[in-house]
Amino acid sequence: MDRRSFLKTTAAGSAATAAAAALAAPAIAQDTKVVKMVTTWPKNFPGLGTGAQRVADRITACTDGRITVNVFAAGELVPALESFDAVSSGAAEMYHGAEYYWQGKSPAFNFFAAVPLGFTGQELESWVHFGGGQELWDELAAEFGVKGFLCGNTGVQMGGWFREPITALDDMKGLKMRMPGLGGEVLRQIGASSINLAGGEIFPALQAGTIDATEWVGPWNDQAFGFQKILKNYMYPGFHEPGSGLSVGINKGFWDGLSAADQTLIAACCSAENDLMMAEFNARNGTALQQLINDDGVQLHEFPPEVWKQIADASEQVVSDVGNGDEISERVYNSYATFRQSVSGWSRLSDQAYLNARQAAIGI
Amino acid sequence: MDRRSFLKTTAAGSAATAAAAALAAPAIAQDTKVVKMVTTWPKNFPGLGTGAQRVADRITACTDGRITVNVFAAGELVPALESFDAVSSGAAEMYHGAEYYWQGKSPAFNFFAAVPLGFTGQELESWVHFGGGQELWDELAAEFGVKGFLCGNTGVQMGGWFREPITALDDMKGLKMRMPGLGGEVLRQIGASSINLAGGEIFPALQAGTIDATEWVGPWNDQAFGFQKILKNYMYPGFHEPGSGLSVGINKGFWDGLSAADQTLIAACCSAENDLMMAEFNARNGTALQQLINDDGVQLHEFPPEVWKQIADASEQVVSDVGNGDEISERVYNSYATFRQSVSGWSRLSDQAYLNARQAAIGI
Repeated sequence: MDRRSFLKTTAAGSAATAAAAALAAPAIAQDTKVVKMVTTWPKNFPGLGTGAQRVADRITACTDGRITVNVFAAGELVPALESFDAVSSGAAEMYHGAEYYWQGKSPAFNFFAAVPLGFTGQELESWVHFGGGQELWDELAAEFGVKGFLCGNTGVQMGGWFREPITALDDMKGLKMRMPGLGGEVLRQIGASSINLAGGEIFPALQAGTIDATEWVGPWNDQAFGFQKILKNYMYPGFHEPGSGLSVGINKGFWDGLSAADQTLIAACCSAENDLMMAEFNARNGTALQQLINDDGVQLHEFPPEVWKQIADASEQVVSDVGNGDEISERVYNSYATFRQSVSGWSRLSDQAYLNARQAAIGI
Repeated sequence: MDRRSFLKTTAAGSAATAAAAALAAPAIAQDTKVVKMVTTWPKNFPGLGTGAQRVADRITACTDGRITVNVFAAGELVPALESFDAVSSGAAEMYHGAEYYWQGKSPAFNFFAAVPLGFTGQELESWVHFGGGQELWDELAAEFGVKGFLCGNTGVQMGGWFREPITALDDMKGLKMRMPGLGGEVLRQIGASSINLAGGEIFPALQAGTIDATEWVGPWNDQAFGFQKILKNYMYPGFHEPGSGLSVGINKGFWDGLSAADQTLIAACCSAENDLMMAEFNARNGTALQQLINDDGVQLHEFPPEVWKQIADASEQVVSDVGNGDEISERVYNSYATFRQSVSGWSRLSDQAYLNARQAAIGI
């Protein structure tokens, strides 16, 4: 999923309502900070919007309202993609979004959300907190007066919904598939047509036959859009977003003015959301997957290795090109590539080997 | 690793030193709570002890010292395995440990840390927060006047160090291997000798030939003990602790007396530590693994599928027997087994399939 296009449709809107709600807030003690969190999500969008609301509520609750964080859905204060600028300028104190939305500022931002063939959610966490990622991010975002934190993850995204199972790369050629961003660039490299559609436009486009295939996020979110009513072949694993990190960005002036205690508290609330959102996606994807199979007759298919190999090679090239975008992108790419080499050696022996062995031994 | 035995050796000790340090603390404002966190770890034991210290420091920092958490290593106030009783009685307000240490109170506690063939770290998080686990844990721990939170995870543990690679189940029979707890029970079922040794006793026992093989945690922690100097064959994946959850337990009376704000803050600090400790283990295991291979000539071997299958079958039986331990253990086991079925369906399509495909395609 790339949520950019989908969110553009919600860009106009209910700013007046939000302002009215703010005015109706109870009287506030003098040392209380009322903070605006703009987001790139529709109000309470499952997992992402609810996660943003949850971290905002957590900061408010932890401080007993001393820092009260009001969440604004995409378009309520600013359009989704202007969230970064709003925080950069101080029009809002915080955003919740995904860093690849700001790739127009620098391609380097992609690496703090997701890139094709990149980090899983856990690997991203490791790189940012213990592999030098946060320091690079701080340097990058400081140029724009922003301080960023990881704050949620969708986990591995599915490969998408297709009319017929993909059995060879030729099946992908000429296919009109909804997939924006770097994943879409990879599709173009292998001869498919990458179509950029807003989330709400996908289902009608599938009905009308305007597109042949689509990806979105995973079972929980995809089920809500009802793709299973039209397409029955659900391919895995996705190559394009193997663990999409969400983030909170904070206006640097506001951040620097906070006490050390409040800085620690906000960082802790973001890390907590990272933990909980991943847990929620994994739990709800498990349930939704069983429903899709049992109730809707959805069939799962793994991409054939030779197809995935060609997609993977194209992905590596596309991401390497991103690393040539500018000076800091090159440093971020090099850090990413070095760390991926190291951490993947451990992923292979731990989660990967264990899950393979458990499945082979007891079928679970 | 089961840390029980290893920690017994540190049970005596420096309580006097700790008490003196507490007395020497600066004058404290009236509404400041000074809280004792007893732990099952040696002071600053990598990953586990440092994680306990980090979450304590985070709570202290977030509250600007209003809740000051002082950490006591195993044996400083009470022996490691008396941490639960100390919190239950109110002698300490909190512990940091692993729930399987309290299996003598009820076998059900095992499921909130790790069981053979059980949850990965991410699956455990999902079950506890979004699969009914926390509610069962609350019911279980409330009987003892304790409220528990997940607070850290080691990730998948390695299968252990051996003189020769394991190529058949016969190689395990009669083997004297250091592995305590439920994993040790599984070893006995398949004809190996399970030896319970404290951490510091393992290296000398290997040198003396008292044991043939050992497990501990993973590359980062194992390297520190130097097993690579004696044994060169490092088997994976471990079956016994596929994602060992650590936890904070809080005296129920103390917890109930906290404001809603402070309750939320402490819960957030624990979830944050869950996020960060997993990230740290994954990062440092990746680095240590490369060093073990490149600098020490350690050879990695995967357990042959038929060996793992027999170990897995024995594990399923041992864990099922744990579920027969008492009434609540049966309910916890049933919840665990149902959720594992659901979440593993998703683990298979996401992390497992993605990591397999990435490795097959680009060797990383």
